Amino acid sequence: MYIGVDLGGTNIAVGLVDEEARLKYQKSIPTKSERTAEAIIMDIINLIQEIINDYGFPKEGIKAIGVGIPGLVNYKTGDVIQCVNLNWENVPLKVPIENALGIPVFIDNDATLAGLAEFEAGAMKGVKSGIILTLGTGVGGGIIIDGKIHTGFNGIASEIGHMVVGENYYDCNCGRNGCLETFSSSSAIINYTKKLMEEKNSETVIADKIQGNYENLNGKIIFEAAINGDQLAKKVVDRFVKYLSIGIVNLINIIDPEIFVLGGGISKVGGFLLDKVREEVNRTKNFKNIPVTKIKLAELGNEAGIIGAAMLGKQHKIN
Amino acid sequence: MYIGVDLGGTNIAVGLVDEEARLKYQKSIPTKSERTAEAIIMDIINLIQEIINDYGFPKEGIKAIGVGIPGLVNYKTGDVIQCVNLNWENVPLKVPIENALGIPVFIDNDATLAGLAEFEAGAMKGVKSGIILTLGTGVGGGIIIDGKIHTGFNGIASEIGHMVVGENYYDCNCGRNGCLETFSSSSAIINYTKKLMEEKNSETVIADKIQGNYENLNGKIIFEAAINGDQLAKKVVDRFVKYLSIGIVNLINIIDPEIFVLGGGISKVGGFLLDKVREEVNRTKNFKNIPVTKIKLAELGNEAGIIGAAMLGKQHKIN
Repeated sequence: MYIGVDLGGTNIAVGLVDEEARLKYQKSIPTKSERTAEAIIMDIINLIQEIINDYGFPKEGIKAIGVGIPGLVNYKTGDVIQCVNLNWENVPLKVPIENALGIPVFIDNDATLAGLAEFEAGAMKGVKSGIILTLGTGVGGGIIIDGKIHTGFNGIASEIGHMVVGENYYDCNCGRNGCLETFSSSSAIINYTKKLMEEKNSETVIADKIQGNYENLNGKIIFEAAINGDQLAKKVVDRFVKYLSIGIVNLINIIDPEIFVLGGGISKVGGFLLDKVREEVNRTKNFKNIPVTKIKLAELGNEAGIIGAAMLGKQHKIN
Repeated sequence: MYIGVDLGGTNIAVGLVDEEARLKYQKSIPTKSERTAEAIIMDIINLIQEIINDYGFPKEGIKAIGVGIPGLVNYKTGDVIQCVNLNWENVPLKVPIENALGIPVFIDNDATLAGLAEFEAGAMKGVKSGIILTLGTGVGGGIIIDGKIHTGFNGIASEIGHMVVGENYYDCNCGRNGCLETFSSSSAIINYTKKLMEEKNSETVIADKIQGNYENLNGKIIFEAAINGDQLAKKVVDRFVKYLSIGIVNLINIIDPEIFVLGGGISKVGGFLLDKVREEVNRTKNFKNIPVTKIKLAELGNEAGIIGAAMLGKQHKIN
């Protein structure tokens, strides 16, 4: 049995997961991210202990604890290098939890762990290599090669949202221009919709939906409008799909995985998005006489974070 | 002992390579690529036999034969899927050589094998992960992960020249727009120099060098002019470096290797190019508090092709 911790800016979710990546029991509490790192880590430790007590499983039977972070980790030391949502920089995370509970702890990036969860129990089950793209406020990535998460030499691999795929009218937060997440995230389509609405004053059902307040604009409204045939929204979605497909074809040319999985909030749009991405990737891919790489939607929901984190212990061969 | 075959559009070079990736003996003959595939393959077989006889090494002591191709291979069947230089499509290569000589044969892409050669005996020696970029007429790539060449699910991984890194004024031969090799290859800088010279009619020493004939333009002339301070040539080289660095930073964000190696004809420019690329990558990389990834020049010369091909047998654990 493994413990998985999904540490987000809003909630801390902790769960008990078995060898077959099945979530047996879980609880969550608010992160209250304005607090100190020490206070948050103390809450994580207490919640793990509570889960173990509640479920009545002997602590000695827990092989490992995994923690997923929406940020950059040093997977060797187990420190969080940077996590914007929590306002953390160089925070030791592995060591305090290990010291408190006496169980091996591993930490990794949350998108990487969403990929690991899909690999163990979802859309990537049974493959040897796959890439998840988590399409949300930003774009995250997780890469599985030869059945192992690919972390890289410095632990910064799979930051797919910061692959430059074109030239954009605004710079990415990271300082570069043309990052995938400035084209194919919810922030990106909100920005672009706003730009088109302000520039062209075109007819769009979105104007009514947001009642003149751009604060009300979100990815769901834009995709729904596109599905219902709104021209402005369709233009926005086409641009999203165009650059996402450039990113996917780039990754085929670089890594050539067996499968791609689309996850994150935007993937809930479902078949409408999936069909468009498949069509565009097929239209633009190189090497026409090579089979088309499979693209699927993520199968696990919110529990992917906990499951992926828990499966880190299995990756590190704690058996 | 292993045999390595470097099959190019101009020459077929074959060599005998020992366990430590040392080239012991080699011979080469013209490819005469206008001939049939059968005739060329027969020449390869004869040249291998000749090398073995000349060197007086028992054929039974040859563990494997590796063949490098400037094209796309199916590494499972050992067929050449596509090779523009030889005008080959779907040509069986592994099987006829194996049948003729009774030694296991492996084939792979030549840029991948240049990477393998650097990994076994050159700039990547001692690392676990690295990426070579071969900068020539096009841009090739070779990726080593965990000490193994990364081939991908369909065998098309490491086609780094076809990573889209921006938007360009002309399309790539592959049909996409913005491929790295349309910015950072010798063809790319020849095209761009020509464009600038035609558009602006600016003062440039290149005009004299080519004596009014763009056919005389090549990468060497452009880099030499830039080194000597020619403004137009400097602009061309800066653009080459800008996009090459975008490609390298993308690969850091995706794969995060221990080292990058610059190979191919253009890498012979040496320190001038290396310094510029290092500076630009350092200036534009994400994650400022992560160490800068090492970038080096390739150390092996023309023999990289033979050595890399020979080392394929070692990769496939033919011992």
